[in-house]
Amino acid sequence: MGDTFEGAAIIGQSGGPTAVINQSLVGLIDELRECNQITKILGMRHGVAGLVARDVVDLTQTPRDILEAVATTPSAALGSTREKPDREYCVRITEVCRELGIRYFFYIGGNDSSDACRIVNELAAEAGYEMRCFHVPKTVDNDLMESDHTPGFPSAARFVATAFRADSRDNASIPGIKVNVVMGRHAGFLTAAAALARENDDDGPHLIYLPEVPFDTERFLADVDRVYTRLGRCQIAVSEGIANADGVAIGAALIEGAERDAHGNVQLSGSGALGDLLSSVIKKGLTPAGGKALRVRADTFGYLQRCWPDPSPIDSIEARGVGRFAASLASQGHTDGSVAIIRTGSGVGDEPYASDYKRIELTDVAAKTKHMSETFFDGTSDVSQAFIDYCKPLVGELPRFGQL
Amino acid sequence: MGDTFEGAAIIGQSGGPTAVINQSLVGLIDELRECNQITKILGMRHGVAGLVARDVVDLTQTPRDILEAVATTPSAALGSTREKPDREYCVRITEVCRELGIRYFFYIGGNDSSDACRIVNELAAEAGYEMRCFHVPKTVDNDLMESDHTPGFPSAARFVATAFRADSRDNASIPGIKVNVVMGRHAGFLTAAAALARENDDDGPHLIYLPEVPFDTERFLADVDRVYTRLGRCQIAVSEGIANADGVAIGAALIEGAERDAHGNVQLSGSGALGDLLSSVIKKGLTPAGGKALRVRADTFGYLQRCWPDPSPIDSIEARGVGRFAASLASQGHTDGSVAIIRTGSGVGDEPYASDYKRIELTDVAAKTKHMSETFFDGTSDVSQAFIDYCKPLVGELPRFGQL
Repeated sequence: MGDTFEGAAIIGQSGGPTAVINQSLVGLIDELRECNQITKILGMRHGVAGLVARDVVDLTQTPRDILEAVATTPSAALGSTREKPDREYCVRITEVCRELGIRYFFYIGGNDSSDACRIVNELAAEAGYEMRCFHVPKTVDNDLMESDHTPGFPSAARFVATAFRADSRDNASIPGIKVNVVMGRHAGFLTAAAALARENDDDGPHLIYLPEVPFDTERFLADVDRVYTRLGRCQIAVSEGIANADGVAIGAALIEGAERDAHGNVQLSGSGALGDLLSSVIKKGLTPAGGKALRVRADTFGYLQRCWPDPSPIDSIEARGVGRFAASLASQGHTDGSVAIIRTGSGVGDEPYASDYKRIELTDVAAKTKHMSETFFDGTSDVSQAFIDYCKPLVGELPRFGQL
Repeated sequence: MGDTFEGAAIIGQSGGPTAVINQSLVGLIDELRECNQITKILGMRHGVAGLVARDVVDLTQTPRDILEAVATTPSAALGSTREKPDREYCVRITEVCRELGIRYFFYIGGNDSSDACRIVNELAAEAGYEMRCFHVPKTVDNDLMESDHTPGFPSAARFVATAFRADSRDNASIPGIKVNVVMGRHAGFLTAAAALARENDDDGPHLIYLPEVPFDTERFLADVDRVYTRLGRCQIAVSEGIANADGVAIGAALIEGAERDAHGNVQLSGSGALGDLLSSVIKKGLTPAGGKALRVRADTFGYLQRCWPDPSPIDSIEARGVGRFAASLASQGHTDGSVAIIRTGSGVGDEPYASDYKRIELTDVAAKTKHMSETFFDGTSDVSQAFIDYCKPLVGELPRFGQL
């Protein structure tokens, strides 16, 4: 820990937004306003891209009612960016920070954002400019190391579970085979959350395919056939990131012009190609008894998963708390760090859910991806009770349905 | 009007379900239980398909708590069907009804369901079997004649408006061009409801394309270019049913194997093909300044539009009311009919929204499609204030967002 010293703080938001990312922004502002050494609170418009263009907004005096309205608004209120700053870019960031008198740098984002914090922190130190850099976690993918879960994930999981629960009724009304494609490039947590939709025996999702389990088309067809033969319908959760045994993503190859972002990732969302491919595979691969055409449909849940304005109550509270905690690290004299959520009460059975925050090193999170533990799988096409116990306390109450 | 006489009643649900179709089912049951001449209340499993297979369920004594849980459950609790009964099929329906002692036939569905009621009614009369047939309207497409709007539409419109409002924030966070494809084969009401998303100037949707306005690709590209040049982003609402000046649907031709249902309709939902085509058209047709790749994404909202479990409060009440009203037509001695919702209070300005129900002829609805009135268009890519005034009172309060 170093000393605390006076200076301006700046906050940025980066990467795919979430339903609660602005809770973290407001949590940071709340706590920074209570720090005597913070002379000014600035926001970057569209993350580091705005910062280097000196496009910043002063948040020091933003009224309480506006902050509270922003906190419950999905998507990055400051604007976000997909820019991944390299060293040269980070030199410019450090220069602008020095110019603006910024001594406290907060970046709300995923593992790439943590890496940006790490580089900026190093460069400032090398340049002899005292600046403290903190990463505030967010990602619907839930793929950050050290954390029980990440802010943004519970709300996205709530949307996915609700969507599968409602869509399962739709699928039971007019029986057929239904594929729903869920976000999550490398980690299957969000797709796995579909399992929370089940209320009764034989409710969907009947099959769940995760990026961590190699996807085999023949086995997939056999799975679908087995469920469809038994129930006359089949609801399937598929991660956009499913890949074959060689690690080749099934969806990525299909997307016309296979666009890559600044991080080298192929853009998987914003296209229905994977769902349509799987529909086609099923139509061609399965021949139902009686020769009647199979009813096969695919939906790709898309961006609504990360912006639907009905967040998990726990997620809203924790996202705010993570922001406050990051600001408190600065006021306590830490020179850098990220924040992890620790589960202190399981939320299973009689034990209430409880959580706390702790400081972790930027390098614990930076550019690393957490995958689902093997204890969370049940065979190759479902999740385990351990995953349900892990996920269910996070999403809040789901709508309950009746049946005749 | 004929006399009333004793007998069993049967209720079926048909076509694409809605979030409130079970309110109509429960409304029917509520009112039928108060009719002395109704000896028994049956439900068809999966509409007429279940009926001819004698797959029926007795609803006469179903407990109140189950009925209320079912009422707030999306999708057809009895099961639905896409079967469109022809005369031969209707002969079998009439035979089974006679066998089961059914004198009152209620079918909850769209314009095709009204047509089925009409045929069954005629056949029963020809066969000298006294049976009364009533159509109870539902469709998210809002395309039934005579009605101000149809049960199911306000809830789907609520989902679409909420989705556009949240997605518009996502699109502003990471600016780009976003296409969202909305249900509605021939009528643009549901796509038009996206306009309710707007809270502030420059909020999306910036462009709205309806099936009633011929789609011209060159004009589309010019529209997108104009908005994108001005705002650096563009959110677009597109009906799945957009068609060119010759009436050829843009989406239908793309869908592999172009499946047709029993009604001869090409299956448009359950595929991302139209959204992906429009993305591709934009990427190929527009060259942004600076030569940087355009960020273009497409989501197809899919089946969540008709089953999302957050219905419009007015829709829930009216769907129940329409069911009760249909049952009351039977107890009053009507021999057939459908139900229309009439708006008796505009809901605009100081005038509160109010509505009432009236009996209309089956032939007023049967196999006819209502399109959007020209007064609801504003040019070729937006809706008018008249449409906003029409639609806004129906959907209930939408989430309100803040901004910095």
